[in-house]
Amino acid sequence: MTYSLTNRLTAEALGTALLVCTVVGSGIMADKLTQDVALALLGNTIPTGAILVVLITIFGPISGAHFNPAVSLVMAIRGDMQWNCFAPYVVAQSLGAILGSLVAHGMFDLAILQTSTTVRTGSAQWFAEAVATFGLVLTILGAVRFRAESVAVMVGLYITAAYWFTASTSFANPAVTIGRAFTDTFAGINPADVPAFIIVQVIGALVAMVVGGLLFSGAPEAEVQKA
Amino acid sequence: MTYSLTNRLTAEALGTALLVCTVVGSGIMADKLTQDVALALLGNTIPTGAILVVLITIFGPISGAHFNPAVSLVMAIRGDMQWNCFAPYVVAQSLGAILGSLVAHGMFDLAILQTSTTVRTGSAQWFAEAVATFGLVLTILGAVRFRAESVAVMVGLYITAAYWFTASTSFANPAVTIGRAFTDTFAGINPADVPAFIIVQVIGALVAMVVGGLLFSGAPEAEVQKA
Amino acid sequence: MTYSLTNRLTAEALGTALLVCTVVGSGIMADKLTQDVALALLGNTIPTGAILVVLITIFGPISGAHFNPAVSLVMAIRGDMQWNCFAPYVVAQSLGAILGSLVAHGMFDLAILQTSTTVRTGSAQWFAEAVATFGLVLTILGAVRFRAESVAVMVGLYITAAYWFTASTSFANPAVTIGRAFTDTFAGINPADVPAFIIVQVIGALVAMVVGGLLFSGAPEAEVQKA
Amino acid sequence: MTYSLTNRLTAEALGTALLVCTVVGSGIMADKLTQDVALALLGNTIPTGAILVVLITIFGPISGAHFNPAVSLVMAIRGDMQWNCFAPYVVAQSLGAILGSLVAHGMFDLAILQTSTTVRTGSAQWFAEAVATFGLVLTILGAVRFRAESVAVMVGLYITAAYWFTASTSFANPAVTIGRAFTDTFAGINPADVPAFIIVQVIGALVAMVVGGLLFSGAPEAEVQKA
Repeated sequence: MTYSLTNRLTAEALGTALLVCTVVGSGIMADKLTQDVALALLGNTIPTGAILVVLITIFGPISGAHFNPAVSLVMAIRGDMQWNCFAPYVVAQSLGAILGSLVAHGMFDLAILQTSTTVRTGSAQWFAEAVATFGLVLTILGAVRFRAESVAVMVGLYITAAYWFTASTSFANPAVTIGRAFTDTFAGINPADVPAFIIVQVIGALVAMVVGGLLFSGAPEAEVQKA
Repeated sequence: MTYSLTNRLTAEALGTALLVCTVVGSGIMADKLTQDVALALLGNTIPTGAILVVLITIFGPISGAHFNPAVSLVMAIRGDMQWNCFAPYVVAQSLGAILGSLVAHGMFDLAILQTSTTVRTGSAQWFAEAVATFGLVLTILGAVRFRAESVAVMVGLYITAAYWFTASTSFANPAVTIGRAFTDTFAGINPADVPAFIIVQVIGALVAMVVGGLLFSGAPEAEVQKA
Repeated sequence: MTYSLTNRLTAEALGTALLVCTVVGSGIMADKLTQDVALALLGNTIPTGAILVVLITIFGPISGAHFNPAVSLVMAIRGDMQWNCFAPYVVAQSLGAILGSLVAHGMFDLAILQTSTTVRTGSAQWFAEAVATFGLVLTILGAVRFRAESVAVMVGLYITAAYWFTASTSFANPAVTIGRAFTDTFAGINPADVPAFIIVQVIGALVAMVVGGLLFSGAPEAEVQKA
Repeated sequence: MTYSLTNRLTAEALGTALLVCTVVGSGIMADKLTQDVALALLGNTIPTGAILVVLITIFGPISGAHFNPAVSLVMAIRGDMQWNCFAPYVVAQSLGAILGSLVAHGMFDLAILQTSTTVRTGSAQWFAEAVATFGLVLTILGAVRFRAESVAVMVGLYITAAYWFTASTSFANPAVTIGRAFTDTFAGINPADVPAFIIVQVIGALVAMVVGGLLFSGAPEAEVQKA
């Protein structure tokens, strides 16, 4: 018998909570300690990349460790997850993400309930989010295809890079975007800007699903020779 | 015949000493070289994460490489370590931790014996320490369950993240907390603030033991299919 | 049947595009956020090293993940790639590299088409590029020889180091050099300086091919004992 | 037939050259780009740790990848290397180290031949170097004993930590110390201070050999159960 739906949803919620708690908390810490925004972003990037490797490693065998509705959508469309799990996963991820912001506030002695006033909008930001999510889903599909045991490391490294090469610092995750709307700190996003982010994230994910489907579906020489 | 208790206690003491020596020494170095506190924290974080991977790899097969009374307590309760080893482990860890601070002072030409004057107290700090230790123990239990050969890397990555996302910079370890009371430098903690830290660390560890016990006890699909 | 040439060229083009997009994009981000050039270089280095590990892992089984005409040349000369693939690979890599710069500009709301005005020339820079490419090709040949599954990580780590120890920040790649001529940002290179860079990169690669051929061709003791 | 002595000495010389070239070159780069010494040290640390993983991976199967007379001495005493290789190894390592400094100068357009004027002396520095080399040799012996395939990563991570927690920034290597006497840049050391550094490095290495011999010689439970 495999893990129960309760265990899986707990893993998704707890994992997304710890992820957002790291994103928001390290942003608060970095912002508090330095005037240099590049240094603050580095203090935000390194913890996020590190915790992703940990969370995907320890929760992956239970729930798949999506922590991300865009990833869950791709998995459901591809048939790698049952459709009737999709809605519960998204709810668990979103509630976990919000909880993560609240816990971060509690640790830093800030008002628990906040909403962000950081404007993140415009076509360049949207293009960046689409590219960021495209790259994330491509990374996951490629790693699952060729080196399944390395998915956790690959996602951690991808996000480490994407924090810097995308103009939006790569949210790339609808649940995390929602969670980050609940904090008026370094990592926040104005709630009014959330829907557009989610739409372009889903578009980027779907494009990656199609491209990855075409690109990774063949067999590398090594496998052919073995067979 | 497995490793003798002498070897195991030596491994715990030497490992904890090198860990605290790194935490305290890199703190002194960083603090000496820069005015930017975020940069100093980065110069404290990267060495700590790196040395944890090394120490757990080389001492793990001897003693389990706990270096941490909260971890030893969880292992004893779970039956993964004999109870009659618990007290000796805690003593070895604590003495090693103090030694680590002293060695760091010797290398940086500072007074060998010091006590910290850095106040670290209040409910937000305590909540942060409980969260930090919760996450650490959850990481260890999950990694042991699903990817035992990666525990060293996972702990190193977790602490790298936790230095930044918890307001207390994640002591998450009663022995290390005691060792850091013996240095009046960047990493220090006022001795009067130590007991409260230890109490919340133990609470966080026990909660993680319960949550992890429920969450990780099932079997992932891959294992079920093999069986 | 192994991957079609279309799939392989798509992998080379898409991989090189994402690589250059990371190099250029993280350079723009870093340059925008800080006055400290060392910090900007760090914000350029860490994403580049990270994305290389990801891209080589997910595209390596399809195309070999060269992303680099100098590497493709060495592979063709050594007989590890058919010569009739060489020209298509170089075209795909070069077009991908240019696309990468354009995408980065789009994400950061800059003029899409640019040419660099950053002068990078002189014998010291050329010597640095030859050393950089020598080291890169030696790393690849050694890793392929002794630890094939680690090539992605080794290339990522090598470039992380080479950004700093070579005076030119280690372009080490003719296609990437061409792509970086199309951006007038942190990572750019004046088009007039590109040909000399490419020549010394190829020289460095060929020297590494010869040295690596002599050095790695024997068998380590472990393999001899097995046989 | 295993690798010839020529191949092995070439690997030791080339590897040590690339190591010192990275240490010295990244020091020059970092020092040139920033006023913040902690940031410069970070720009020195990350490349050094990264290149060590690469060099030990690609040269380890040929020569053992010591790059370090203190390590070669320990290996010879333990019987892991023939004594008649010891002197040639030390010569190759030392010449390689000097060459590394010269190449770095060439890349940065500096005078090729230099001698350092940076004073590094005193009992605290000597204690730090002894601790640094103790830790390095302990790391190597422990990793070889329990996880031989991870020696490269463990040495890279150990040195990453030791740059910061030892007051001397952890030379921990007589050949590298000699090579660094030939550069009057960030990483240099006054030639007059070299002999004392070498003496305490050897002492640290020998203490680690004894401690490691006692500590690692038993068998972990896992191995006992298998047997």
